[in-house]
Amino acid sequence: MPASPYQQLEEEFRRLHAFRGAAAVLRWDSVVMMPRGSADVRGEQLAALETECHAILSAPKVSRLLDRAQANSQGLEDWQLANLREMRRQRDHAIATPTSLVSRLAKATARAEMHWLEARRSGRYADFAPHLEEVVHLVRDKAALLGNALGLAPYDALVDEYSPGLTTAEIDGLFKSLARRLPTLVREAIEAQAARPHVPIVGRFPASKQRALAVEVMKAIGFPFDRGRLDESEQPFTEGVAGDIRVTTRFDAADPFQGLLGALHETGHAMYDLGLPQAWRDQPVGRNRGMALEESQSLLLEMIVVRSRPFVQYLRPLLEKHLGASGPEWEAENVYRHLTRVRRSLIRVEADELTYPVHVMLRYDLEKKFLLGELRVTDLPDAWNSGMEQRLGIRPQNEVEGCLQDVHWAIGSFGYFPAYGLGALIAAQLWEKLRLDREGLDAEIAKGEFGGLFEWLRVNVHSLGAKPTVQQLVRLATDRPLSAAPALRYLEAKYLEP
Amino acid sequence: MPASPYQQLEEEFRRLHAFRGAAAVLRWDSVVMMPRGSADVRGEQLAALETECHAILSAPKVSRLLDRAQANSQGLEDWQLANLREMRRQRDHAIATPTSLVSRLAKATARAEMHWLEARRSGRYADFAPHLEEVVHLVRDKAALLGNALGLAPYDALVDEYSPGLTTAEIDGLFKSLARRLPTLVREAIEAQAARPHVPIVGRFPASKQRALAVEVMKAIGFPFDRGRLDESEQPFTEGVAGDIRVTTRFDAADPFQGLLGALHETGHAMYDLGLPQAWRDQPVGRNRGMALEESQSLLLEMIVVRSRPFVQYLRPLLEKHLGASGPEWEAENVYRHLTRVRRSLIRVEADELTYPVHVMLRYDLEKKFLLGELRVTDLPDAWNSGMEQRLGIRPQNEVEGCLQDVHWAIGSFGYFPAYGLGALIAAQLWEKLRLDREGLDAEIAKGEFGGLFEWLRVNVHSLGAKPTVQQLVRLATDRPLSAAPALRYLEAKYLEP
Repeated sequence: MPASPYQQLEEEFRRLHAFRGAAAVLRWDSVVMMPRGSADVRGEQLAALETECHAILSAPKVSRLLDRAQANSQGLEDWQLANLREMRRQRDHAIATPTSLVSRLAKATARAEMHWLEARRSGRYADFAPHLEEVVHLVRDKAALLGNALGLAPYDALVDEYSPGLTTAEIDGLFKSLARRLPTLVREAIEAQAARPHVPIVGRFPASKQRALAVEVMKAIGFPFDRGRLDESEQPFTEGVAGDIRVTTRFDAADPFQGLLGALHETGHAMYDLGLPQAWRDQPVGRNRGMALEESQSLLLEMIVVRSRPFVQYLRPLLEKHLGASGPEWEAENVYRHLTRVRRSLIRVEADELTYPVHVMLRYDLEKKFLLGELRVTDLPDAWNSGMEQRLGIRPQNEVEGCLQDVHWAIGSFGYFPAYGLGALIAAQLWEKLRLDREGLDAEIAKGEFGGLFEWLRVNVHSLGAKPTVQQLVRLATDRPLSAAPALRYLEAKYLEP
Repeated sequence: MPASPYQQLEEEFRRLHAFRGAAAVLRWDSVVMMPRGSADVRGEQLAALETECHAILSAPKVSRLLDRAQANSQGLEDWQLANLREMRRQRDHAIATPTSLVSRLAKATARAEMHWLEARRSGRYADFAPHLEEVVHLVRDKAALLGNALGLAPYDALVDEYSPGLTTAEIDGLFKSLARRLPTLVREAIEAQAARPHVPIVGRFPASKQRALAVEVMKAIGFPFDRGRLDESEQPFTEGVAGDIRVTTRFDAADPFQGLLGALHETGHAMYDLGLPQAWRDQPVGRNRGMALEESQSLLLEMIVVRSRPFVQYLRPLLEKHLGASGPEWEAENVYRHLTRVRRSLIRVEADELTYPVHVMLRYDLEKKFLLGELRVTDLPDAWNSGMEQRLGIRPQNEVEGCLQDVHWAIGSFGYFPAYGLGALIAAQLWEKLRLDREGLDAEIAKGEFGGLFEWLRVNVHSLGAKPTVQQLVRLATDRPLSAAPALRYLEAKYLEP
């Protein structure tokens, strides 16, 4: 029997999956293993793979097969129908932007990233601005084309790449609820914590010992070291595919927690990949449900589980075992206070759980204005600094600690930032339900037993792959529509404890 | 101006080069970095890349362009004409074997390799034999098709894949000269060395210190650590592309030389890649001139340069610096005798310079017989053991130290073995000319100065890429046709010194 159009599509997307997996390993290698001088050679390899992926998705053959499979979809099962929808989504994104624009954007972002790095060194935003200008210009063209093709407003079309199905209207509503409460919550938390000071934790903690600690915790959590690796890099990241997942972190000898928290944030991503539906692992419907869901899994582990009293109780003897930690500053309550300290700070990636969404919402507002033409690149530093002052009460003294701190815009990633904030909301909403469903959860975590926690996440989140939309997934898992209320309840309970 | 057919071909082969480079990094990663459980995922990625490479070469478009470029070749320069010839050669090899046979061969060799590993553990050749039988059967089919397409005898067509342009007639002649002299030479060398015994070198040499030694020597030789890496693996190998070259070796704490020799053998390969013509690096004509030339470069460094008195003079203080070597067994003359000791032994990869070609010639004769149908798989153990007894005077006591020692046939690599022997001949012939051209060479090597040596190799060998044939290259470099005479002169002088 000849293969049906649907079966032929599965074969095409299997190839796509293999090429993307190859590219993922090459990207990991570029950062972790590759000799510095080989970037040009690697660039050619990655460009060839990306071009091939784009060629598969935009081939007339795939579009024809999509139409024929759609017309004969009555025999398909739920998963297959969802797979067909996700295939179409990927195709739509691929063909909406002409190759010439993709190529101009690739060149402009490569230039802009280089000048961004340079400007971070020199502190001269003005040298970077013309290159950002060019990127913004091209991204606006792309957003218009993508919006046309998808029937979305231009900025929403960009968001759709990272957080499928979520629109500005919805995100605005969610973020507004957060923004209404956060400023006072931050103030109240800082006041409450000032009344309960903690002893600073200082010392020298060799990377090799921190690594052994991280590996032991990751093993307890269930990270599959027979199908994954932990390495070191300047910025922590997760790369690879389900079945070969590689996380990195950075160990700082002066800070016993930064490397561990980085590794566990990434382990949250890795556990998501591990729990994706095995039967669909090389198909679009078997992928993660976008970056908001990804961030929900990393934040749930790093921010909610790890920065909790039960987890610190589990961690305490391991700190002694691996780092020789002893003395009053290593008492469980002091470690907990250290890990949950709230500060008004300028740098997003160093921000605590409570102020982090503020950083994200500022970027979200600014990038929307860029897309609408309401903000000019030359006016960005002022808009950024005023925004920080207004939202968090602190003002950057220069652009390096202001609008030059993130690489996202330089590399053309507009529409990504909201995923960080949405991820925090989703994490809190899942967590609230998880605690209702599993009464003994705190006691399990305190004993270093994470099987129940991840079984719940596997059943309710991971194993659904990309079958439901984000909103459907949250509703299925929690019986409630996505909202900011659980996050606010969680933050108030945690940071305003009596 | 639209691209000419020739220019379009360059573009196609540039893509091919990028995919092959990506596959090379993935193969390196499989052995050196990949988690053990991820082999299935990696297999899919490599299969997708190999299929794509085959698709590029066998596309009707490429054949059409080759015809058109050939018809309009009057404006092309020498390098471009040679490139066109190499493109055609790759295309011819790719289209000669139908995809169905390629796929059956891939499956049969995967099975055979698994059972080969198993048989090495159990010692039961009979369990492996049916799988080797299947591979031999398919390889004979492939050789017949390839021979038809290339106008060569079946076995010659297989040799052509690895050592282009060399035929059985020529190899037979070269090997016959060797085989005539080697048996007595081995006996005389062993007798001569018995009269000059050396002190055994024993001790514990931590891998980290051996590594530091290897890195220092590799740096002196010119290995580009900004565009290459040294790692460890069970079997030493070189992988990657010019511009990102990765070598491995294996350090044995009980043996201070094995890891260093492995690393330097591979450094010989890496230096060849490094010296290939930069302007043609992503084109067929810019690749190495086959495996015989590759082996000539690794053997020239490992066997001729490194196992010499001047090199030992350079190495002596480094052994003291890194391994704390002191005492009479570490005297230069004793180390030299240790490194040049001749033994009748059963395992090819552990053989010395003098007996090594004997191992190769046995395999060459046996695989020719397989291809002609003159040897049956069930008769291999007897044929092997008798061959060893007749050629080297020792007889394997079991198949693990006999015909199960090499993986080549299990994975379908028939026609490769002669490259090892040809490489040794070419190395000696290049070396003879090199010493004539550079009078002070010994003194340079004794001082750890390798610039002159590799400049000569770069100019006379590496920078020619695949422009000349093997025979042309040897003649250009040495003013003489390829012959066994220089190797015999070199071996006699070295192993029968008064």
